[in-house]
Amino acid sequence: MISEKLPRIWYGGDYNPDQWPEETWQEDMRLFRKAGINVATLPVFSWARLQPDEDTWDFAWLDRVLDLLAKNGIFACIATSTGAVPPWLATKYPEVLRTTFDGTKRKYGHRHNACPTSPVFRRLSVQLARKLAERYASHPSLVAWHVSNEYGGRCYCGNCEKAFRAWLKKRYGTLDALNHAWWTGFWGHTFTDWDQVVLPNLLSEHTDARDQSRTAFQGITLDYYRFASESLMETFCAERDALRAITPGVKITTNLMGAYKELDYFRWAREMDIVSWDNYPALDTPVSEIAFRHDLMRGLKAGAPFMLMEQTPSQVNWQDYNGLKRPGVMRLMSLQAVARGADTVMFFQLRRSRGASEKYHSAVIDHAGHENTRVFREVAELGAEIGSLGSALLDSRVESSVGILFDWENWWAIEMSAGPSAALKYVQQAAAWHRALWEQNYGVDVVGLEDDFSRYDVIVAPVLYMVKPGVASRLEAFVSGGGTFLTTFFSGYVNESDLVTVGGYPGELRKLLGIWVEEIDALLPSARNSIQVKKPFGDLKGSYECGILCDVLHCETAEEVAVYGSDFYAGTPSVTRNKLGKGWAWYVASSAEPRFLSDLTRTLAREKGVQPVAQAPAGVEATRRKKGADSFLFLLNHGDGPARVDLGGGRQLADLATGKPVRGSVQIPAKGVLILRET
Amino acid sequence: MISEKLPRIWYGGDYNPDQWPEETWQEDMRLFRKAGINVATLPVFSWARLQPDEDTWDFAWLDRVLDLLAKNGIFACIATSTGAVPPWLATKYPEVLRTTFDGTKRKYGHRHNACPTSPVFRRLSVQLARKLAERYASHPSLVAWHVSNEYGGRCYCGNCEKAFRAWLKKRYGTLDALNHAWWTGFWGHTFTDWDQVVLPNLLSEHTDARDQSRTAFQGITLDYYRFASESLMETFCAERDALRAITPGVKITTNLMGAYKELDYFRWAREMDIVSWDNYPALDTPVSEIAFRHDLMRGLKAGAPFMLMEQTPSQVNWQDYNGLKRPGVMRLMSLQAVARGADTVMFFQLRRSRGASEKYHSAVIDHAGHENTRVFREVAELGAEIGSLGSALLDSRVESSVGILFDWENWWAIEMSAGPSAALKYVQQAAAWHRALWEQNYGVDVVGLEDDFSRYDVIVAPVLYMVKPGVASRLEAFVSGGGTFLTTFFSGYVNESDLVTVGGYPGELRKLLGIWVEEIDALLPSARNSIQVKKPFGDLKGSYECGILCDVLHCETAEEVAVYGSDFYAGTPSVTRNKLGKGWAWYVASSAEPRFLSDLTRTLAREKGVQPVAQAPAGVEATRRKKGADSFLFLLNHGDGPARVDLGGGRQLADLATGKPVRGSVQIPAKGVLILRET
Amino acid sequence: MISEKLPRIWYGGDYNPDQWPEETWQEDMRLFRKAGINVATLPVFSWARLQPDEDTWDFAWLDRVLDLLAKNGIFACIATSTGAVPPWLATKYPEVLRTTFDGTKRKYGHRHNACPTSPVFRRLSVQLARKLAERYASHPSLVAWHVSNEYGGRCYCGNCEKAFRAWLKKRYGTLDALNHAWWTGFWGHTFTDWDQVVLPNLLSEHTDARDQSRTAFQGITLDYYRFASESLMETFCAERDALRAITPGVKITTNLMGAYKELDYFRWAREMDIVSWDNYPALDTPVSEIAFRHDLMRGLKAGAPFMLMEQTPSQVNWQDYNGLKRPGVMRLMSLQAVARGADTVMFFQLRRSRGASEKYHSAVIDHAGHENTRVFREVAELGAEIGSLGSALLDSRVESSVGILFDWENWWAIEMSAGPSAALKYVQQAAAWHRALWEQNYGVDVVGLEDDFSRYDVIVAPVLYMVKPGVASRLEAFVSGGGTFLTTFFSGYVNESDLVTVGGYPGELRKLLGIWVEEIDALLPSARNSIQVKKPFGDLKGSYECGILCDVLHCETAEEVAVYGSDFYAGTPSVTRNKLGKGWAWYVASSAEPRFLSDLTRTLAREKGVQPVAQAPAGVEATRRKKGADSFLFLLNHGDGPARVDLGGGRQLADLATGKPVRGSVQIPAKGVLILRET
Repeated sequence: MISEKLPRIWYGGDYNPDQWPEETWQEDMRLFRKAGINVATLPVFSWARLQPDEDTWDFAWLDRVLDLLAKNGIFACIATSTGAVPPWLATKYPEVLRTTFDGTKRKYGHRHNACPTSPVFRRLSVQLARKLAERYASHPSLVAWHVSNEYGGRCYCGNCEKAFRAWLKKRYGTLDALNHAWWTGFWGHTFTDWDQVVLPNLLSEHTDARDQSRTAFQGITLDYYRFASESLMETFCAERDALRAITPGVKITTNLMGAYKELDYFRWAREMDIVSWDNYPALDTPVSEIAFRHDLMRGLKAGAPFMLMEQTPSQVNWQDYNGLKRPGVMRLMSLQAVARGADTVMFFQLRRSRGASEKYHSAVIDHAGHENTRVFREVAELGAEIGSLGSALLDSRVESSVGILFDWENWWAIEMSAGPSAALKYVQQAAAWHRALWEQNYGVDVVGLEDDFSRYDVIVAPVLYMVKPGVASRLEAFVSGGGTFLTTFFSGYVNESDLVTVGGYPGELRKLLGIWVEEIDALLPSARNSIQVKKPFGDLKGSYECGILCDVLHCETAEEVAVYGSDFYAGTPSVTRNKLGKGWAWYVASSAEPRFLSDLTRTLAREKGVQPVAQAPAGVEATRRKKGADSFLFLLNHGDGPARVDLGGGRQLADLATGKPVRGSVQIPAKGVLILRET
Repeated sequence: MISEKLPRIWYGGDYNPDQWPEETWQEDMRLFRKAGINVATLPVFSWARLQPDEDTWDFAWLDRVLDLLAKNGIFACIATSTGAVPPWLATKYPEVLRTTFDGTKRKYGHRHNACPTSPVFRRLSVQLARKLAERYASHPSLVAWHVSNEYGGRCYCGNCEKAFRAWLKKRYGTLDALNHAWWTGFWGHTFTDWDQVVLPNLLSEHTDARDQSRTAFQGITLDYYRFASESLMETFCAERDALRAITPGVKITTNLMGAYKELDYFRWAREMDIVSWDNYPALDTPVSEIAFRHDLMRGLKAGAPFMLMEQTPSQVNWQDYNGLKRPGVMRLMSLQAVARGADTVMFFQLRRSRGASEKYHSAVIDHAGHENTRVFREVAELGAEIGSLGSALLDSRVESSVGILFDWENWWAIEMSAGPSAALKYVQQAAAWHRALWEQNYGVDVVGLEDDFSRYDVIVAPVLYMVKPGVASRLEAFVSGGGTFLTTFFSGYVNESDLVTVGGYPGELRKLLGIWVEEIDALLPSARNSIQVKKPFGDLKGSYECGILCDVLHCETAEEVAVYGSDFYAGTPSVTRNKLGKGWAWYVASSAEPRFLSDLTRTLAREKGVQPVAQAPAGVEATRRKKGADSFLFLLNHGDGPARVDLGGGRQLADLATGKPVRGSVQIPAKGVLILRET
Repeated sequence: MISEKLPRIWYGGDYNPDQWPEETWQEDMRLFRKAGINVATLPVFSWARLQPDEDTWDFAWLDRVLDLLAKNGIFACIATSTGAVPPWLATKYPEVLRTTFDGTKRKYGHRHNACPTSPVFRRLSVQLARKLAERYASHPSLVAWHVSNEYGGRCYCGNCEKAFRAWLKKRYGTLDALNHAWWTGFWGHTFTDWDQVVLPNLLSEHTDARDQSRTAFQGITLDYYRFASESLMETFCAERDALRAITPGVKITTNLMGAYKELDYFRWAREMDIVSWDNYPALDTPVSEIAFRHDLMRGLKAGAPFMLMEQTPSQVNWQDYNGLKRPGVMRLMSLQAVARGADTVMFFQLRRSRGASEKYHSAVIDHAGHENTRVFREVAELGAEIGSLGSALLDSRVESSVGILFDWENWWAIEMSAGPSAALKYVQQAAAWHRALWEQNYGVDVVGLEDDFSRYDVIVAPVLYMVKPGVASRLEAFVSGGGTFLTTFFSGYVNESDLVTVGGYPGELRKLLGIWVEEIDALLPSARNSIQVKKPFGDLKGSYECGILCDVLHCETAEEVAVYGSDFYAGTPSVTRNKLGKGWAWYVASSAEPRFLSDLTRTLAREKGVQPVAQAPAGVEATRRKKGADSFLFLLNHGDGPARVDLGGGRQLADLATGKPVRGSVQIPAKGVLILRET
């Protein structure tokens, strides 16, 4: 449970009372209560109000807000307000401003504007966090800490350059080790002094302002990405430590952003008490991808419940076309988050801004200022419904037998690989495998490289390009113990420094997979090959389209399951499986069409006795959350018409909100959701 | 009349004799006379020739040119030559060079290269203007002053930053007022000292080098746009004042550029004696848009005749594909300018350049150097024709009963609004309504916010997003007095600081329109909704396509004229009208197809008794200019075949050039033009 | 012969042993021998290894490698390693780093990173070259010198700016001459002091970061391009001189890059002992274009044999989609190079890199490390075949009767012309005419402006926009003497300073062509006109499509061969020919479809008695190389099926590799090649 003070699904969101006159606050309270809101996140961007200059502090207004919230029974997720520095700070200490990828020192503006290695920023941000903790440690409203906001971006300033050199010294010890890891002999970049190292940006190893992942030295850029993610994380940790010292029992989080490339969230999650994230799909984001992002966020802490920290009640403002969420969709997406592991449903924001860049981002209380809007009504209805769920779901966990391996450093390395194909995108590949499982309603987790593989029956590792130390042997152990493992083309190529493992691809995975990949062909976007299944294998049969890359390979100990249908490597293996101990390791040598992914994953699941959560028609998402003996079935109908779901046999279930018994089959209206207690 | 010295349509253009040896000048005179040219604009870019260093002046060559022009009966629109600074000035005083949007200090080059707030530039440009005025005040050739050239661009240097802070202090008085206007509480940008304010560019509040209108704080950028337009205008005013002090009777202008976004031309026009502009449509610019730009330029000074300062005789060089003007088209476009209010027809340029970036821009005298070219022949024929028109048209005014409201600050604000749709472009919307009226040959003016609304029967205000102080009440007075007013979706949202008017859209226009807009939906480019007319209203009936944005609204005092055809808001109002006093205020809640605009404007015009200038077939443009009792009808056939126009009843008209009577109907050849005296 | 030491086709490529442990070197030798490799290029990027700091040198490792090569009978093309500076040098002397087009000073990184005018770089690069020459002058392996690597790019630093001013003073003598050449009167850029001149980049005369050829002053940019090409060339010459002083008999080259725009290779080739180049077609580059580039490279030294310095054995890494070379294609492309004049077949690289940006570029020895790969087998088979050719082909020359005029400065000028059409690309136009000749297997040379025109029967000069001093009269002499000359639209416009030759286009070519071009129309990409042949002329008849530009012209002394089919200039000439002395000068006034180019070139060739090398079916390329009495016929089948070629009459030929007689006709398999001795 996030906080014993608020033992139920949290419902609320970002609140910026300092943008409004105090008379508005009273009206806010009335409307919050009407909407069933029980938590407000604040003050997210109020550093300048809390500390108008280095020596002056003003908490009085915040005292009044927090007291008012408390008086109205609303709890506070208190933010440290360090997501944007105030103007006075930037003017007084220009070092806090970042330098961009193209080497330009920024002036004051925007947000996410602090250099992570600036000593001044570290000192002043920690000071502010500490002041807040000291002042509100025992405030009745306080239920969690929210550090900064949506961390991101990278800085290329002189302070960061010096810090990067120190980081490298610690990582490599000697220049020989660094020169080897970065393969500096290529193009004669051998470093003979640590101070010769400069940050890899548009002034040095990068040359394309539009494709910032293009670098002449992958090793350098990869290490800088690691460093940049860690140095931002250290600013989080510094604030966290200040808070924790004063309120050791209060959970601390910062809001993440799903499949956000720049930060290694698995590494970050280790430092966070609970994961929270902001879910902002585009109008045309497939529902399956939202599910993938929830699973990714849940996976960061091995399945622990997470917080949906932000979502919009209706529309955002920063996409090109900011459509409204249709009636029912806000509820559907809120409960999808809960279905996939969230213990909170929170919005950005509670009252809509009058000015600046997010005034066209919708809010619970619209510019109209009253409750007589469609959006408010839907929010209030959902508030009542969530209230009726009580604490039953809290701390329950999503049940999964299949894991998808995901690794941020692998992502970075693949997309800066400088060949063989610009069409290869890691998240697309991972999401495609996830979607195949999601569509069939298999419980699926996203798994980090340091997680326990033995929790799963089947592990899919799309494009496991970078094999870090120990991973190959842990995967061998997983398979030997009976697990089913599947990986794809462009796997096993490099080590953690992006150095190719010579002697034959897939390198360290060669024994596990029992194959040797001799060549790797990149297809033009218009070109296709095919996967021809030799003899039916489970549901796998006939021919499937494939493209992007085609590994040309040889079976060593593996069996050939399918071959290519055309080109000079027609008839050579395109899908293989290799027996190792009690399990099987599969290799899919090209990027196949969705039908293939679906047929193959179903076949592998069935082979391992893995069942879907429910047998539901297309468009209906089903998940199960469990806590001890309690089990809850979520059925979400994403379709535009009603759907009927067979609940199986004579099972007696109950609607969680109403307690009404349900048996046989249920009809779910378009965009409708059912939460059923199974026990 | 621009000048009593030259009481006829001016015919001529830019002349750069200093690029040629003096022997060429004599040949120029012969050819100018042959072409019927009566005015030359010079010296537009000769600062370095007139003042080779700070202490040296050389006017002798210009004396000779002006004397030669005078001897040949050709007048001079004398330019101040400050459109580009000379190399010595930039080398001696680097402060005069601009700093770009990305924060880069420019080196010497190109044109439009002076920082508008540079004290050195102000001093030296005014000095040059004064010297020219002193020298040529009583030269017989002088008929007008042409200050600088095609002002534009913005500067982001330190001088501009300081000047911007001073401008803000004057505008806001206190930091509290500024913080409120800019809504700096959002993202915690509260300024506590004026010197904390930095210019809004790629180093501060902007983040997209390609879409420079994206800003985190619209209020800041909007004010900077105002400041930038004004600071450039001040450089114009400074030169103007120097000229006016010496030649108080000579009209002063600078050449504008139509729908040019960066400068608030309504504000500029107040400082100019006469508006002049450069008409450079692309090969595929619709004729209607050229008409719109003429009307916009004429509207800057409430309908006063303007100067067509530049057009190309045949082709330009700076478009991707620079096609020739087909035979007759140069005449057609010249007389279109006159038809819509121009009292001059002028070219860039008279002799084609041998070198640099405009050598492939055509001219009256081509590189061939003689008169035996199609282009010269067409120029000379038009010269003779214009000569035969005498002074009849001078100072006559275009007759219009319909006004289109246009506002530069509204334009800026809409396109930096950060939502709801990137597809919304202000000029496109305004031009679409203008086109509907133009196609039906209604006399239409483009009207500024400070103009007298009562001159019109119908006012259309496309996307009146920003409602400045007093505008709503003046519109209410216009409607109450019997006027018909129409506005569209995304209107009435914000005040002059881009702060939303809370309490319900369309804010200050709510009483006038009698509606409440609850939500605003943005459609993907592929999506469409429809406007369903409930029962026929004039020519409005059936169903029309719409898109981009769909306001979801409620009628308060308004009547529902049409509803939406689909989506969850199907059946709710899409077109409304509201009675206020003696008039009606209309609201069109989505961006409708041209047929709708046509049907609705015709219906509204008819209701107010407004008649088209002429009943002419499609492709024939008709306008009327009036002066006292004189009335002139222009008929321009843009089609590729001949067109017959019924002149109506037994009216006796006369061809203006020949005096020949015309009655009944006339046949106009393809690309042909008729100018008829109606009185 | 490149070197008497190695009197056969060189076979080998880039070798980077310093990236590998010494134990690998032995294995390399074994595999090199197995592959028939006889030459290795090294050390291309080892400056930091050879000179770890300014005072330390380490040649021991290189001694060992060269000795090992010698012991294994493999020769060395020794590189000077100056293609990238080492980190210590950049840190110690920041002046060596370049400044980019947008004015940014680079930090250390990437390659091609030295400023060409840096005195430090000149001193240290020459010192390194000298040290290498001193050490290896009499090493048995040394067969050639390879200076730096793939020179390219431009620098915009202060040193370059000063050097540019000095270069201008030398070129122009006076500022008056410079102001005239640059036409600075336009936009008032008259320079009154040499120090006012700044480099033309994004800070000065250029405004478009994406289209760097757009400049306000073509004359300035053109001169800077000349200067930039020459200043890089001077760094080459400086190293060359140091090498030549010590090893006067050893040939010196640097590897060029085909149709590489930035460097005037005709000028460079004069300084090189032998031309070498790197052939990296994209997956979808037409074979004809590769042939064009070979001919261009051979043309740089008037037909002397050249070196194919680099090609990939299978795939590259830097294209978006890096497909494999299909079986046989590597051989086909290798022998195409030889067929068109190469005396070497060399690869990048011999052992594939483990790290950095080219690790996915294929190599003779793959990451697998052994010889059991398709790629290695194909390399070894070709090695054996090339070995069997002996020295027969060495120094033989490709036979051609047709020349295509090509000029780098013309290329620069056309594409920065600022009109009339962005669709006009010089290399496309030249390659289109080359392709027409290539498809018909005419022997064709690419000819520089300073070459001897009299060697040819027919000269085609596509878009001879810039006519430099003397060229027009030399072309008149060529035609008067009986030659056939053909040029196209947009020719004869400007002199070497991009100043238009006034008095009528095509300026200096007007007498030669007998026409006056009055206007030049630019068509939208979607638009087309047609060339209508009045009465059949040879194979030219009927109608052909044309576009991009249409010159509207008048015949003076020329005959009309064809007219336009549409638009207002329908019926006016589109193709003309003019008799001058004993020859004919043709003008093609628009960009015509390939069929036209084919029909016309065939007609002209036939008229001059020029025969194709062979009568071969489509897809079969035929060339002939001759040396004294020896003659060799190459037949290359680029098709996907077998092709039969009639060898003509009763000629007795012999397979060069096997000596087997061939007579009558031969069948060539798909992707197959035959080299036949004809004597």
